[in-house]
Amino acid sequence: MTHTNPYRTHTAGELRAEHAGRHVRLAGWVSRRRDHGGLIFIDLRDRWGITQATFHPDNEAAFELAERLRPEWTVSVSGEVARRPPGNENPELPTGEIEVLADELEILSTSETPPFEIERERPVEEMLRLRYRYLDLRRARMRENILFRHRVVKYMRDYLTERGFVEIETPLLTASTPEGARDFLVPSRLYPGEFYALPQSPQQFKQLLMVAGFERYFQIARALRDEDQRGDRQPEHTQLDLEMSFTTQDEVLDLIEGLYTGLVEDLTRKRIARRPFPRLTYQEAMDRYGSDKPDIRFGLELRDVSEIGRDAGFKVFANAVRDGGSVRGIAVPGLGNLSRRELDELTGVAALGGAKGLAHFQVTESGLKSPVAKFFSAEQQAALREALEAQPGDWLFFVADADPVVFESLNRLRLHFRDRLDLANRDELAFLWVTDFPLFEWNEEERRIEPMHHMFTMPREEDIPLLDSDPLQVTGQLYDLVANGIELASGSIRIHRPELQKKVFEIIGLSSEEAERRFGPLLQAFRYGAPPHGGIAPGVDRLVMVLRDEPNIREVIAFPKTQAARDEMMNAPSPVAREQLEELHIRLAGRAAGD
Amino acid sequence: MTHTNPYRTHTAGELRAEHAGRHVRLAGWVSRRRDHGGLIFIDLRDRWGITQATFHPDNEAAFELAERLRPEWTVSVSGEVARRPPGNENPELPTGEIEVLADELEILSTSETPPFEIERERPVEEMLRLRYRYLDLRRARMRENILFRHRVVKYMRDYLTERGFVEIETPLLTASTPEGARDFLVPSRLYPGEFYALPQSPQQFKQLLMVAGFERYFQIARALRDEDQRGDRQPEHTQLDLEMSFTTQDEVLDLIEGLYTGLVEDLTRKRIARRPFPRLTYQEAMDRYGSDKPDIRFGLELRDVSEIGRDAGFKVFANAVRDGGSVRGIAVPGLGNLSRRELDELTGVAALGGAKGLAHFQVTESGLKSPVAKFFSAEQQAALREALEAQPGDWLFFVADADPVVFESLNRLRLHFRDRLDLANRDELAFLWVTDFPLFEWNEEERRIEPMHHMFTMPREEDIPLLDSDPLQVTGQLYDLVANGIELASGSIRIHRPELQKKVFEIIGLSSEEAERRFGPLLQAFRYGAPPHGGIAPGVDRLVMVLRDEPNIREVIAFPKTQAARDEMMNAPSPVAREQLEELHIRLAGRAAGD
Repeated sequence: MTHTNPYRTHTAGELRAEHAGRHVRLAGWVSRRRDHGGLIFIDLRDRWGITQATFHPDNEAAFELAERLRPEWTVSVSGEVARRPPGNENPELPTGEIEVLADELEILSTSETPPFEIERERPVEEMLRLRYRYLDLRRARMRENILFRHRVVKYMRDYLTERGFVEIETPLLTASTPEGARDFLVPSRLYPGEFYALPQSPQQFKQLLMVAGFERYFQIARALRDEDQRGDRQPEHTQLDLEMSFTTQDEVLDLIEGLYTGLVEDLTRKRIARRPFPRLTYQEAMDRYGSDKPDIRFGLELRDVSEIGRDAGFKVFANAVRDGGSVRGIAVPGLGNLSRRELDELTGVAALGGAKGLAHFQVTESGLKSPVAKFFSAEQQAALREALEAQPGDWLFFVADADPVVFESLNRLRLHFRDRLDLANRDELAFLWVTDFPLFEWNEEERRIEPMHHMFTMPREEDIPLLDSDPLQVTGQLYDLVANGIELASGSIRIHRPELQKKVFEIIGLSSEEAERRFGPLLQAFRYGAPPHGGIAPGVDRLVMVLRDEPNIREVIAFPKTQAARDEMMNAPSPVAREQLEELHIRLAGRAAGD
Repeated sequence: MTHTNPYRTHTAGELRAEHAGRHVRLAGWVSRRRDHGGLIFIDLRDRWGITQATFHPDNEAAFELAERLRPEWTVSVSGEVARRPPGNENPELPTGEIEVLADELEILSTSETPPFEIERERPVEEMLRLRYRYLDLRRARMRENILFRHRVVKYMRDYLTERGFVEIETPLLTASTPEGARDFLVPSRLYPGEFYALPQSPQQFKQLLMVAGFERYFQIARALRDEDQRGDRQPEHTQLDLEMSFTTQDEVLDLIEGLYTGLVEDLTRKRIARRPFPRLTYQEAMDRYGSDKPDIRFGLELRDVSEIGRDAGFKVFANAVRDGGSVRGIAVPGLGNLSRRELDELTGVAALGGAKGLAHFQVTESGLKSPVAKFFSAEQQAALREALEAQPGDWLFFVADADPVVFESLNRLRLHFRDRLDLANRDELAFLWVTDFPLFEWNEEERRIEPMHHMFTMPREEDIPLLDSDPLQVTGQLYDLVANGIELASGSIRIHRPELQKKVFEIIGLSSEEAERRFGPLLQAFRYGAPPHGGIAPGVDRLVMVLRDEPNIREVIAFPKTQAARDEMMNAPSPVAREQLEELHIRLAGRAAGD
């Protein structure tokens, strides 16, 4: 039994010349109204497109109603489809060959003047957009972003389902997790003084699902993390959470590479720079780009000149090497002459990475020009040029410091030049895998070893003996997917053997009681036949952002929070009634008991 | 680039006789081990099935390892596929024609003895199952339920995407809602004294998405409601949230009917009792079944005998009618003779619905037998029999009281007889729509009119004038989908005209300030051209439960809470560190400030 829709027979995006003569009905919003030559023209907009409806004064009732129409009113219009008079076609509209000669108009609702224009893509202050998000979402940019996001997520689900993955929902109300300091807590009404926590990720649950034997699990999952909103973070974000049993790193990488390749090819016009995706070890990525999420769409690779720096008369270089650091540099063509002010600016960019200075040399036909050139012998200058494969006209920039400072400073310089010199092709997606991260890192502040990612990561099989002798040298089965300088996914093969897990806990100084308290269910589950397993968790918001060329993830989320973690439209968070708190057995801090 | 998996070449569900001679590798769990005739037989289980691996002592290394195997250890086994010796085939296993003659065994992990058997479907105490959910999920029943659930949800997404619907995620951290009393609250770290609330449903957001012009939205959404756990509730449940613009009730019903029909036909072996789904008005459903979610797989329909009761000498009947109530009854065949005790039990069932008594008559060839027969004239007795189309051997049961009591009592009796007499076909799904609910109901306690569902429901167009004169007579464009006595979905066409919304607020006594405070964003959005819209929100857990013949929704949720709203495995809720509360600017009630 199919019923007739009283509002429309067609969408506003589908009528073409071949429909001429058909009597149709359309519904949607008045996008524009123009009065011309005694006629009224309405651009009628719905989700699928725009169609012109034309009102003739002959049809008195409809014409009089049409005279009242204003932008953003909703209407239902019926009439006959007609080819537009020659010369009046609009080639920019798929429906531009036709118009609907309106014979009936129903006004369904009216609209006040919106706080910003819907139809034209003019910049609007973001706070205003967020406050009137339901209007902002009517604009083509946001509408297309959200529709595109749906297609991306649908593609992921189809791809994984075809490959035997099963989507399983894990709880939102759970227990406070390892990274508990950033948990959102939810007071319980039934259990005074007790709290649920919202998941920062379904990590424990997905590993439990492997113990449970589901083998191939995924979930488009919401992850909630209560952290200061840095840059492009949101208190809640969406990830494709995924885990596999009886698997290897290569298998996970192949799976995701296939997913992203298909997704880009089927849903975008972008070009994937290199296939298969290059796989760099963490160390290679750092050495060549100073970053574990490098943008490899362009060169400007780092070169290590520590050997030259060590022997140079330039103290800054020699000291850095002597203190266990390094001297590294990049060669940048196409900069022309740089003023003092410009060089200061570049030093400022490097300083954001921690560099206390930036040594610069201009390469000329006659040699290196630099305030510090005098500290380098002719051989050393030649060696620097050779190391950086420098050509006349290039500028060379060097940072000498501890490795992390050198890397971060030169990474920032690289990205600065990328934008300044427009080195990266916007239509290109340069995916790569970064693998072989160290399993641990040294926390200088707390003087202890801590896990680089999380404490369930499996070491490389051949590194297991190093756990006892030199844990900081152990490489983990960890991998990140990067594109255009943005980390899109992070994953690892997990430890499934209790005794190995115990050793890792010992290394990071976690007592077995504490481990039990924090990871009890998972550790207990591992006693009952845990399969080898591993997974990954690609971020959905960031991927859509990258594919849509948007500057931040708020542009690809229907109802995002501000950078200050507020919902400006719903006004959240906000105070609640005292009775509500009483029912939850809590009160506000800083208030006396009788308040 | 495809890498070889070192653990398996095939799943344990796919090998058949035609694979004989192939060298394969399988991975999974030891389901059973049998030692027989000097051989060791292992049932190797993975997500896809069970395959027998056979160890011969000739292969010493593998055999010795196999001797150590215990249930639930994980292993990887390689060997040649061979047809089983004639007579040893297992017709109950899809792989029962073959075995793998093991030449190599790797033990991947060991297992302690599980707290309950995985392989055999014996009843296990639910608390134990929930505490070891990762083991419970290994059992066939739970595994199949969760895999089936995935297929159901995938079907929904595909069906709706094909029809132009777009899935849009709405926030989990939002503002306290209209039904705020049952909100879960989340204290904000950044804004002392302020709280987010978790959504009880995305109701406001989905209506805002209609104002935003998405026209066809859906989301598999988590809804969180902090209520006392009655029967089959969970603090979080999953719903297919759906909304359409420029639509009608018929269109929503057709859409969902198509979805459920396809879903049942494609994914189950159940039979849909009647197609198209019957559509009963609320009043019809109550009159015929005493319930707005009737099980229509069987008869025992209610009959109104108030006209007979009014004039009978039986005071209980006459008084009920005089006081504005009614007398209704059902005729039940096949009960045989009922003892005093059995009749008392039936009176007890009716009492659960509020009935103060249950009048019963046995229909014999010679007339009605009953302790109260004497209060009815021969004509009245004949009229009762006729009204209930009673046959000799039937029992007639009557309740006389206010209508709600009569309905609820007879509804409970009906369902009691369904189970007692096994009247309902378990393989049958009797879907129906219940429509035309009253828009308002009278809250006797608070002496005021309140909305039957929610306050955004559109009245029937022809009833709008009644809003002023007799609001309790107004019918809403409300609809429920029911199957086998269970409400599966509830929806309505919404009000999109601000002046109509204002009138509804007035009728329920909501001041415009209060309305603005509670529904500000939505009311504001309606000022900018809101389309006519409506939707529905089918529950996913309940649907899967019905389709899988499970007695409660915990059986179709991977990690449910107990009926006491606890997660027994993760131990949530639980106390948290005082520092965590301090960071959230709250403290526990009942503690002095210095605690």
